[in-house]
Amino acid sequence: MKIAVDAMGGDHAPKVVVEGVMKARDQWPDLEFMMFGDREKVAPYLTDETRIEFIQANSVITNEDEPVKAVRQKKDSSMVMAAQAVKAGQAEALFSLGNTGALLATGIFVIGRIKGIERPALMPTLPTVNAGRVVNLLDCGANAESKASYLEQWAIMGSIYARDIRQIASPRVALLNNGTEFDKGDPLHQEVYQRLQNNPALNFIGNIEAGNLLQDQADVIVSDGFTGNAVLKATEGMASLLLNLIKSTLLSGGFSVKLGAAMIKPALGEIKGRFSTSDNGGAVLLGVNAPVIKTHGGSDEDAVISTIVQIREMLAKQTIPQVIDYLKTHDIK
Amino acid sequence: MKIAVDAMGGDHAPKVVVEGVMKARDQWPDLEFMMFGDREKVAPYLTDETRIEFIQANSVITNEDEPVKAVRQKKDSSMVMAAQAVKAGQAEALFSLGNTGALLATGIFVIGRIKGIERPALMPTLPTVNAGRVVNLLDCGANAESKASYLEQWAIMGSIYARDIRQIASPRVALLNNGTEFDKGDPLHQEVYQRLQNNPALNFIGNIEAGNLLQDQADVIVSDGFTGNAVLKATEGMASLLLNLIKSTLLSGGFSVKLGAAMIKPALGEIKGRFSTSDNGGAVLLGVNAPVIKTHGGSDEDAVISTIVQIREMLAKQTIPQVIDYLKTHDIK
Repeated sequence: MKIAVDAMGGDHAPKVVVEGVMKARDQWPDLEFMMFGDREKVAPYLTDETRIEFIQANSVITNEDEPVKAVRQKKDSSMVMAAQAVKAGQAEALFSLGNTGALLATGIFVIGRIKGIERPALMPTLPTVNAGRVVNLLDCGANAESKASYLEQWAIMGSIYARDIRQIASPRVALLNNGTEFDKGDPLHQEVYQRLQNNPALNFIGNIEAGNLLQDQADVIVSDGFTGNAVLKATEGMASLLLNLIKSTLLSGGFSVKLGAAMIKPALGEIKGRFSTSDNGGAVLLGVNAPVIKTHGGSDEDAVISTIVQIREMLAKQTIPQVIDYLKTHDIK
Repeated sequence: MKIAVDAMGGDHAPKVVVEGVMKARDQWPDLEFMMFGDREKVAPYLTDETRIEFIQANSVITNEDEPVKAVRQKKDSSMVMAAQAVKAGQAEALFSLGNTGALLATGIFVIGRIKGIERPALMPTLPTVNAGRVVNLLDCGANAESKASYLEQWAIMGSIYARDIRQIASPRVALLNNGTEFDKGDPLHQEVYQRLQNNPALNFIGNIEAGNLLQDQADVIVSDGFTGNAVLKATEGMASLLLNLIKSTLLSGGFSVKLGAAMIKPALGEIKGRFSTSDNGGAVLLGVNAPVIKTHGGSDEDAVISTIVQIREMLAKQTIPQVIDYLKTHDIK
C-alpha cells in the first residue's frame, strides 16, 4: 500500500507531516510512501527514508491561493504532483493538510471522478455525545449546489464507508432536513427522502434535524453541500466558542474559581479533546478514483498518524473499488 | 398598547403565561391584554384581572397538531382567536408559546402579510460571545424555499428592527454563506449578495460563515430559511450537548472533581444562562401586519416577561408601520 503525501500543506508543515509519516511507517510494515515537497525544508525532519520515496516539488499551494486556478497553474506543487502520482498508478491514495478547495479540485481534475458519480462529496467523521462513537456527514461543502441524484450517490458511498471502515453491519443512514416527517423540506429534500427510502442497499432511517447531528442517532448523515457545510461550521463554531468562553471565565475568576478549575481540568480536558480536535481521521473526498483525504491544517502529529491509519483501512478494505463495482451495476441518476 | 395572548401554548401553560402577563402588567401601566384560554385552567393563576380581558377559547392547538390543518380547523383555539382579535383591530400584537408552525400559519393566514412582503420570516435574537450583545438571524425556518427577493425584504425588516428596538444607528447586515468572498455560494446567494450590496438602505458588510454566527461580527444575519433553520438548530444542539456533557462529567467525577465543580458553579452558570435559555425575548414573525412573537415552549416566567417587553418596544417604536411605510415607496421584487 503506497500513499502519496503532500508534505508542504498545513500550518505546521513539513514538520508534523514528515514526523507523522515516519511514525506511521514504523508502526505499519505494509505501508510505503511517496513524499512530495521541498527537500531543503523537509530535510531537518526526514531522518529515515525507509519506505519513503522523496520527490522534489518546487512550489506550494497555500491557503491564500484560489483553488481551481492554483491547481491549473502550479503543476509543480507538492499537492498536484502527489495527485499525478496517484493518477499514474504509482501511488494508491492522496493525503494532504493543505488548501481544502485545491485538494477537492486536484482530486476531481487530476485523479478523476468514479464512473457513475456526478459529484464527489467531502465527508468528515465527527464525534458524538457518546464517547467512542462517531458519525459521518456528507457533503460538507464540496458542492454549493446539489441535485437529488448526488445525495443518493453520497448515501451509497457513505454507507459503504461506514460498513467497511467502521465495521457497522447495516449503517443507519439519515437525511439532514428541517423536520423529521417524510414530507419535510423543499422539493429537493422531499425527492431525496423518496430515493433513499426506495434504495434497497440503504438502511434509511428517515430525516434528522441539525440539532441532533451529534446525538448518535445515525451512522451516516446525508446533506446537500450548502447546508452540510453550514451545519458543520456552526457546530464547530459553537463548540469552540463555548470551550474558549469557559476557559477564559475560569482563568479570570477569583481564587476559589481558579482552584475549582484546576480540580476539574482533567475532566473538562477529555470533553475538550473530543470536540475541539479530530482524533477521528481526516475528511474523505468520496467519489474520486482513489482515497483522497484532507486533515485539518492545524493538525498535530497524532492527527496525521490517525489519518494515515484511516487511509490504510480504506486501502485494505478496498472501499473505492467497492464503490466502483456497485456503480457498474447500479445506475443512479 | 393591547396585546393578544394565547394563554394555553407552551410546556408550562397556562401558569407561566398568566403569571408573566400579570407581572408585566404591574410593571408597565401602558400595557393592556386580551387573554385567550380555558377559564377553568387559567383561574388558579389569574388572581387579578386589571387591564386583562379574559376570553374563553374552547380548544388548544398542541405541538402534535399539523400546523396549517390545525389553524383551519381549530377556529375556537386560543391561538387562532387571539390572532382574530389582532386582525379585527381589537389588539395590536400576538404573543404565544405554542406550536411554532401553527403560529406562523396563523400570522400569515389570519393576520396577513404586509403588502410588498412575499414571505414573512422567523427572526430570533441570539446571544453572542460578547455578554450583553446579540444578533438577529432571519429566516430561521418559516420558509423551506427561498428566493433572492425574499432575502432582500428580510434584510430590510431585520435592519429596521435592529435600528429601532436595539438602537443601533446603522446595523451591520451580513449574508450567511459558505465563504466570505463575494462570489461564494450558489446562484441564489450570489444574487442576494449583489442585491444587498446595491440597496442603499442597508449597511451590508458582506458574507459571513456559520462558524462566526455568534462572534458579534454582524447585527443582523440574513439567511435562506432552510439553512437558517439548520444553523440555528445545530448551534442550539451543540450548546446543549456540551453543557449537559460537562454537567454529567462533573457530577460523575470523584470527590475533588465534585468539589471543584461546586467552586466554579456560579461562573459556569452565567455562561449556561447566556447560551441555554433566552433572556433575549422571543422570535418575531416579521412580515405580517402586526408583531407576532413566539417564545420557546419551555420558557419560564422571566422569558415571558422579557418577550412582553420586546413586544411593547415594537409597538412603541412602530416597527411594523415603519416596514409598511418603507414598502409603500420601495418595491422589492
